[in-house]
Amino acid sequence: MMALRNLLKSAKPIHNLARCYSAGAKLVDVKVNDQNGVATVTMQRMPVNSLNYDLLSQLVDAIDDLENNKTRGMILTSASNTVFSAGLDIMEMYKPQEEKCKKFWTTLQDTWLKLYGSSFPTAAAINGHSPAGGCLLSMCCEYRVMVNNFTIGLNETQLGIVAPKWFIASMQNTMSKRDAEIALTSGRLFTTEEALKVGLVDEIASDKEDALAKAEKFFARFAKVNPLARQLTKASLRGEDLQDLLDNKETDVDLFWFSVSQPMVQKSLDKYIEALKKKSGK
Amino acid sequence: MMALRNLLKSAKPIHNLARCYSAGAKLVDVKVNDQNGVATVTMQRMPVNSLNYDLLSQLVDAIDDLENNKTRGMILTSASNTVFSAGLDIMEMYKPQEEKCKKFWTTLQDTWLKLYGSSFPTAAAINGHSPAGGCLLSMCCEYRVMVNNFTIGLNETQLGIVAPKWFIASMQNTMSKRDAEIALTSGRLFTTEEALKVGLVDEIASDKEDALAKAEKFFARFAKVNPLARQLTKASLRGEDLQDLLDNKETDVDLFWFSVSQPMVQKSLDKYIEALKKKSGK
Amino acid sequence: MMALRNLLKSAKPIHNLARCYSAGAKLVDVKVNDQNGVATVTMQRMPVNSLNYDLLSQLVDAIDDLENNKTRGMILTSASNTVFSAGLDIMEMYKPQEEKCKKFWTTLQDTWLKLYGSSFPTAAAINGHSPAGGCLLSMCCEYRVMVNNFTIGLNETQLGIVAPKWFIASMQNTMSKRDAEIALTSGRLFTTEEALKVGLVDEIASDKEDALAKAEKFFARFAKVNPLARQLTKASLRGEDLQDLLDNKETDVDLFWFSVSQPMVQKSLDKYIEALKKKSGK
Repeated sequence: MMALRNLLKSAKPIHNLARCYSAGAKLVDVKVNDQNGVATVTMQRMPVNSLNYDLLSQLVDAIDDLENNKTRGMILTSASNTVFSAGLDIMEMYKPQEEKCKKFWTTLQDTWLKLYGSSFPTAAAINGHSPAGGCLLSMCCEYRVMVNNFTIGLNETQLGIVAPKWFIASMQNTMSKRDAEIALTSGRLFTTEEALKVGLVDEIASDKEDALAKAEKFFARFAKVNPLARQLTKASLRGEDLQDLLDNKETDVDLFWFSVSQPMVQKSLDKYIEALKKKSGK
Repeated sequence: MMALRNLLKSAKPIHNLARCYSAGAKLVDVKVNDQNGVATVTMQRMPVNSLNYDLLSQLVDAIDDLENNKTRGMILTSASNTVFSAGLDIMEMYKPQEEKCKKFWTTLQDTWLKLYGSSFPTAAAINGHSPAGGCLLSMCCEYRVMVNNFTIGLNETQLGIVAPKWFIASMQNTMSKRDAEIALTSGRLFTTEEALKVGLVDEIASDKEDALAKAEKFFARFAKVNPLARQLTKASLRGEDLQDLLDNKETDVDLFWFSVSQPMVQKSLDKYIEALKKKSGK
Repeated sequence: MMALRNLLKSAKPIHNLARCYSAGAKLVDVKVNDQNGVATVTMQRMPVNSLNYDLLSQLVDAIDDLENNKTRGMILTSASNTVFSAGLDIMEMYKPQEEKCKKFWTTLQDTWLKLYGSSFPTAAAINGHSPAGGCLLSMCCEYRVMVNNFTIGLNETQLGIVAPKWFIASMQNTMSKRDAEIALTSGRLFTTEEALKVGLVDEIASDKEDALAKAEKFFARFAKVNPLARQLTKASLRGEDLQDLLDNKETDVDLFWFSVSQPMVQKSLDKYIEALKKKSGK
C-alpha cells in the first residue's frame, strides 16, 4: 500500500540515468545461479580492482542488465584473493584532463546511485582488503560478509582527502552516527572482527567460498517477500540519500574537478606514484 | 527553557484534530490506577484486535480523554491472551467504498498522531503477537514490555504491501537505521528475545500481569519530572516526524485509496479471505 | 577531495563570530603539551564551574586562540576534584535584566558553536559530576573519558526546564536516538559505568591523571591524518546541526528570554536559591 507515487517518483530517475558503455577488457564477470536466480558479479581488474572508468562503467552496465532482467539478487565480490577493491584508481586523477576526469567521477556517482538504489537485494562477499572506494561499494549493498584477517574502512582523511557527503550517508546507513564520526575523522581501517563489532559488516567468513555461501543465504530472507513491496520500501529508506546526490550531481563533479586540479594535490600524487614505483622496483 | 514557541506550534495541531465518535460495542476499556494516576487502555475487539474504524476511533477518543484529564501516563494492552493486535482489519480494504475507506485511513493517521505525539508518557504491555499495525501501535509508545514467546515486527513486505513513511519513522525512532532497514525490507517478525536484542522492546515479561507491573514501574522515572518540560522535550524529539505526516495527510490518504482500489490488490485480498474461510472451516 | 566549497561555506561563519572579551579573574587555564602540541583547557571557576558569562566568554577566547594557533588538539577538564561543571549558573537567570541575560545566552551559543564546530580534535577528561550544561560541554568534544563514581546527563526535565534543540542534537550525535529519547524525557543522570554502556562516554578512568592520559592517547589517532581533510570531514558531519543554530540564533535567544522572564520561573528559582542558602547554613 501507500506512498506508491512518491516512492516511484524518487525511484525513477535512478534508473533513467544515461548508460555508459565501455569497450576493451572484460573487467566484470556476471554468473547467475540457476537455482535461486542470484547473480554473482565479480570484479576482475587485477591486481587490486582499482576503480577506474572502465571498471566502473562495466559495473554500471552489469547492474543495469540485472535490473532489466529482474534478477532475484546480486552478490558483489572480487577475483583477487587479497583485495576486494583498493579504491579509486589514482591514475584517473593524476595529470587529469577535465573532460575525462569529470566523466570518471560521474561514472562513480552512477555506480553508487545504481548499486545503493538497486531494486533488487544486494550482498557483498568481501574477500580481501576493502579501503576507501572499496568500502563504499560494499556499503552500497544491503548485507556484508567479510573474510577474516582483512581491513575495511573509509580512510580518506589518512590519504589527505575528504569523503563526499554520499560516502558519509552510506556509512551512517550502516553504522551508528557516533561510530561513523570517529571512523571518518580518523580515517580508521577496521579489521574484519572490529568491523563486525561496529556493524560495518554483518558476518565473518573463513574464506571466499564460505563468504559466498553466507551471502547466498541472505537472499533466502526474501523468499516470501513481494519484490515490488520490497523495492518501494528500500526506495523509501534510501530515497533521501539518493535524491540528495541527484540534486547535486553537477556541483559534486565540479568540486571533484576543483580539488583534483589543485597543484598541491597533483604534487602529492606525484610523490605517491614515485614511491609506488620505487616500492615495486620499476 | 527555550524553543517553547516552536515546540508548542508543532505540538498544537496534533491535539486540534477533529474527534471521531463511534457508537456500538465498547472496544476499548480504560481503567485508572488511583495510586499513581496511570491509565490502562485495553483493546478488546476479540478475537485479535483487528484495527478497524470503530476500534481506532475509540482509541482516539480514549487518548483525547486522557489528554483532557491530564493523565500521569497510559499503558496500552490487549484483552486477548495470545494477540496484542493482528494489525489493520483487511475488511476495511476489501471491496472498499471510497469515502468509508478514506475515513478509516484518516482515523489510523489520527491514532498515530495522538499516540506518538501524546503529551503524557506511554508504555505498551505487549501480551501477545504484534505484527504490522499492532507493532506500529506499540512503537508509538515510549516504552515496551513484551511477554515471552510471541512475535512482533513490521512484516508489510511479506504481505505484499508497503509500510508508509510514518510507520518507518516510528521504527527508526526505536531501532538503529541498520536494523530497521533489514527488518523492513525482509518484513521480519522478531521473537520476544530477538526484539529485546535489537531494542524493539525494552523488557521481557513472563505473563500479562508481569508485563503490566513492569510497565507501571516505567512511569516512576517521571516522578520528579516537570510534566510541561517533559511534554515540550518529547515534542522536540518527535515533532519532525509528526509534522511530516501533518503536512502530507491528504496525499497519504489518496495514496492509500489509490493502492487499495487496484484490481490486483483486491484480487489478492479475495484469495486471502477465501483461504481464511477454508482454514476456519466456514 | 570534494564538497570543499560547501563544507567551507558551512564551516566559515562559525569562526567569524564576534569574539567576547571578559575581564577579571582567570577562570580558564590553558597549558600546551610541548611534545604533542595538545592543549589542556581547565575550567577553574570554583567551587563547581557554574557556567556564567565570564567563564563562558573566557572559554570562547581560549578556543579562538587555539584555532588561531592551529593547535593539534584540546582537552577540556576541571580544576575541581568532584565537579566537571554543575551547568548553567542560575544567578544569570535570577531577577534578570534583558540585555545582560541575552548576552549570557548568546555566549553559551557561541561556546557551543565553537567547541562543537572546532577545526581541531577535542576530548573531555570528565573528572567530576557533569549534569546539564556540564554534560553539554563534554558532548561537544569528539571523545569523552570519565572518572569513575560520578554522574552525567541532560537532566533538564528534572529541573523543570527544556533542553534546546542544539543540546538534543549533541546528544543524538553521541547516543542512539532511542537512548537519547528516554534519557532526555526522564532527565536521567547516568553513573560513569551506565554512561559507558550507552556510549555517552568512551572510556572510564580511575582518577584525573588517568583521564588526562587516556584523553591524550586519543589524539594519537590523528597522527597520520591530514588536518584540513579532518576539519572538512568534521564540518560535513556536524555542519547541519551547527547551521541549524546559526539560522536560528536570535529566535533561540528570544525564547530563552521569554522563558526566563516568566513569573513562574522566577518564583521557582527563588525557592531553589532559598533552599540552597539553608543547605549551606547561610
